[in-house]
Amino acid sequence: MRLLLVLSAVTLLLRATGLAQSARPPVDLIITHAHVVTMNDRRTIIEDGAVIISDSRIVAVGPAAITALYTAQKTIDAHGAIVLPGMINTHTHASMTVFRGLGDDVPDRLRKLIFPLEKALIDRELVYWGALHGFIEMVEGGVTTAVDMYYFEDEVARAAKKVGIRGVLGESILNFPTPDAPEPYGGLAYAKKFATEYRNDPLITPALAPHAPYSLDADHLRLVAQASAKLDLPVLMHVAEMTDEVATLRKERNQTPVEYLDSLGLLNRRLVAAHCIFVTDSDIALLKTRDVGIAHNMVANIKSAKGVAPALKMYDEGLRVGLGTDGPMSGNTLDVIGQLGYVAKVHKLDRKDRNVMPAINVVDMATRGGARSLHREADLGSIEPGKLADLIILDHESTAFVPLFDVYSTLVYAAGPKDVRTTIIHGRVVMQDRRMLTIDTAEVRAHLRDIARRIQAKVAAGLK
Amino acid sequence: MRLLLVLSAVTLLLRATGLAQSARPPVDLIITHAHVVTMNDRRTIIEDGAVIISDSRIVAVGPAAITALYTAQKTIDAHGAIVLPGMINTHTHASMTVFRGLGDDVPDRLRKLIFPLEKALIDRELVYWGALHGFIEMVEGGVTTAVDMYYFEDEVARAAKKVGIRGVLGESILNFPTPDAPEPYGGLAYAKKFATEYRNDPLITPALAPHAPYSLDADHLRLVAQASAKLDLPVLMHVAEMTDEVATLRKERNQTPVEYLDSLGLLNRRLVAAHCIFVTDSDIALLKTRDVGIAHNMVANIKSAKGVAPALKMYDEGLRVGLGTDGPMSGNTLDVIGQLGYVAKVHKLDRKDRNVMPAINVVDMATRGGARSLHREADLGSIEPGKLADLIILDHESTAFVPLFDVYSTLVYAAGPKDVRTTIIHGRVVMQDRRMLTIDTAEVRAHLRDIARRIQAKVAAGLK
Repeated sequence: MRLLLVLSAVTLLLRATGLAQSARPPVDLIITHAHVVTMNDRRTIIEDGAVIISDSRIVAVGPAAITALYTAQKTIDAHGAIVLPGMINTHTHASMTVFRGLGDDVPDRLRKLIFPLEKALIDRELVYWGALHGFIEMVEGGVTTAVDMYYFEDEVARAAKKVGIRGVLGESILNFPTPDAPEPYGGLAYAKKFATEYRNDPLITPALAPHAPYSLDADHLRLVAQASAKLDLPVLMHVAEMTDEVATLRKERNQTPVEYLDSLGLLNRRLVAAHCIFVTDSDIALLKTRDVGIAHNMVANIKSAKGVAPALKMYDEGLRVGLGTDGPMSGNTLDVIGQLGYVAKVHKLDRKDRNVMPAINVVDMATRGGARSLHREADLGSIEPGKLADLIILDHESTAFVPLFDVYSTLVYAAGPKDVRTTIIHGRVVMQDRRMLTIDTAEVRAHLRDIARRIQAKVAAGLK
Repeated sequence: MRLLLVLSAVTLLLRATGLAQSARPPVDLIITHAHVVTMNDRRTIIEDGAVIISDSRIVAVGPAAITALYTAQKTIDAHGAIVLPGMINTHTHASMTVFRGLGDDVPDRLRKLIFPLEKALIDRELVYWGALHGFIEMVEGGVTTAVDMYYFEDEVARAAKKVGIRGVLGESILNFPTPDAPEPYGGLAYAKKFATEYRNDPLITPALAPHAPYSLDADHLRLVAQASAKLDLPVLMHVAEMTDEVATLRKERNQTPVEYLDSLGLLNRRLVAAHCIFVTDSDIALLKTRDVGIAHNMVANIKSAKGVAPALKMYDEGLRVGLGTDGPMSGNTLDVIGQLGYVAKVHKLDRKDRNVMPAINVVDMATRGGARSLHREADLGSIEPGKLADLIILDHESTAFVPLFDVYSTLVYAAGPKDVRTTIIHGRVVMQDRRMLTIDTAEVRAHLRDIARRIQAKVAAGLK
């Protein structure tokens, strides 16, 4: 607050002396007259605030008066709209938009439908267009960073750069031939090549994605751990998601999945563990000690009736918990806003206590929590000077946003993806007033419909 | 299908003979080139279909070619968009939009916050403007019938008619003085007057709303039952919602709430019982025998950590189950689309079975189920000739709607309230392309913000 007063005083001084114009440093983008929800350590909210952006970074945050200190290339008057840090989708498979809505409400889809479809149909083109469509949906819904696992991850990277979204992108590694690697475990070599290609990219962080404890053998999981350490690559993995995963490891090794991964050297700060539904209290303690990131996918986990991950306990105990959508065959939508209400309400139901998981904590998980799960909190997750300029503007005139007694309540219990008006990533306006500025969305939809017709024909002809 | 072929043949014949123009009967509204989800008994879907509307009723439904048989005042080309029966919100308190988002995530809000706020602040003006705002949100989100319980219900009726939404509107009756009735149980006389005023209104059905089994005594509940029978008025009531409601009746009368209401003559086809969370198997059998309507409010029930009502069992056993939002202090939003995903997923979680509550059943509950809960299935709930013209058009170009393998899956797992483009009620276009045609929404929002400032001041000054 003292800083804000000083800045206001500076503005008045500059105005009074007539020096303002000449002294104002140039910046790229100003967002002003916004209800700025900073998500900084003190959870500062500035009711008539401004965010100053230069190149890819936030330069200053304060009351609207600070705009007088700068000369901007472009100014967005938010007219009182809510400005929030961009949301981080910590677990997804964007390209699977091509299969969205296929075979919902049927058992064992992974082995009966998803794997055969992927085997029959996945190629570079499908992965690229599916990812484009998925990333468009994310940007339209306020996601500014996507953590993705799939095949041909270089195509996913190409799609992310085309759309303009930040990506932590993991090439899948499995114990059977995959669409992009004819030999079992071929994904490891593919991933290394991908990582070399995208090293130092400002938007893309390449990663290794060993599918799950049950779909790679111990030797190859060790190789993944070694490659991750040597090349400093994040590891994205499904962990403790399946009851048979837990049962098999208990029977064969008398270990939990978390203990098993620890024994192989995978449990460390480079790991983002998706799901963690079936983790014990001692697993949680171990995950915390090893500083692992957690991707909590509430919607996907309950749609598949797997259960409620103890994300509330993990969050309360200080673990690095972010929110994820999982792929669009699992959760159907890719925006994080659609997760918020579920996270708040299903944990209340699960604990039989309406006071747990308050709205502010859910918004925290969607923004700072996601950044922490990636160990990227120095750069992402809040609106503060020095951080990367990833932020979103929400429509405060939406009927369900009126009246606005508590902005966190509004975001968690009343907002939807179409309430996002404008999305800024790495300082670039990617969507403005719901119009994507980087890509022709109608062309992508048309491509998706073509691909869907091919898929429908394949399903009609019978999968094997 | 045979009917459709015959209609197409008729069209061709009319065209060939050149008689089409002169023979075509005039109608008010045609919606064409729509993906019509009829929700009729056979769940017919017409991929390039048309709906013909005259006055307040649907005249015909068929392939787009049938439009050649009519001359229309107004034609809406849906360009492939989804047309669905309007959704029925079977339990709400629309005027409480003024309090939305106030004191979320805190215990015992009903007694500590809601009742004192209502006592201090509720007047005709607040009820009217709150209801206007709530009904705007409903129409924008695809609700065409609202089942409401509150005070000054004649003001709610006035707001419903202004917005153009269909309403079953119940005046609240309680054992303490209320904002519109200084004497305990004054609501009963108020309700009778209201019922006289609105009898035979095409949009409004007046109703009695005894608040709950625990907030009226047995004598007055009997009087309500008698008035309902004599005046043929629906009864709207919170039933088996609270654990202490159940415990007290068990202790004092050794009855369940359902058994208790049956003993008082309230359990019959005129009753719409909201919540029914704590009902036994024999309660369910009794509710079925008595042909009671059920309003299932999943989002509100889990946000308050009360539990999951056995709506799956009730639906599967053929009871009349519709969906409700509850008031905006409970569930925060008033559109039924926002309930669909929760209903599908939380029942799967609750049963630990991903196959239960498939999407088609959830859409059924939101439309036909709602109509059945009101015993209005002859008029509402599906798109069929002869029924009232309550229907909605959804934006099929929404990113999350592409590709469209299964329209029910898309509606339940991917749609949100802002995907509704156009809402037609009683044959009247109330919203078109997201613009409300009946009311100035900005004026209503401004009024709501004024009221919110008054509420905020009252809360800041301390409630008692």
